[in-house]
Amino acid sequence: MKTVKIFITLKHGVLDPQGKAVQESLNKLGFPEVKGARVGKYMELQLDDHADIDQQIKEMCAKLLANPVIEDYQYTIEEGAVQ
Amino acid sequence: MKTVKIFITLKHGVLDPQGKAVQESLNKLGFPEVKGARVGKYMELQLDDHADIDQQIKEMCAKLLANPVIEDYQYTIEEGAVQ
Repeated sequence: MKTVKIFITLKHGVLDPQGKAVQESLNKLGFPEVKGARVGKYMELQLDDHADIDQQIKEMCAKLLANPVIEDYQYTIEEGAVQ
Repeated sequence: MKTVKIFITLKHGVLDPQGKAVQESLNKLGFPEVKGARVGKYMELQLDDHADIDQQIKEMCAKLLANPVIEDYQYTIEEGAVQ
């Protein structure tokens, strides 16, 4: 069993209105030191062991999890199920 | 300038219908090895240097970013702006 942690973010240059809203809200709540915010998605998958796990993850991201036109993704693979 | 990466996840035991939908979709798309999925949020904040940055981040999460009743969060602090 492996735990795959996937971070999906908007590509640089793609407008992020949700991030902008977070930044402005934090500024108004008394955190003027926040100069920028970007919001993305985070996923944890539990996978049975597989011969080519990197290839599998890339296919999952391309087919379902990320929008390759506007999003980038990174992932880490850890042994064992998440605690 | 510091970059803070925040991962917000549902607490263990809290039902995650979005994660369940991701898992079932991946299974149907030809990835039967996916045995579980949890979906969360990921944020990158750009912060000016501040005396007590840990305390600031905890306050931001408590006041706006996370729902402490059902969500946990983790964060990392990196020097410099995100590339």
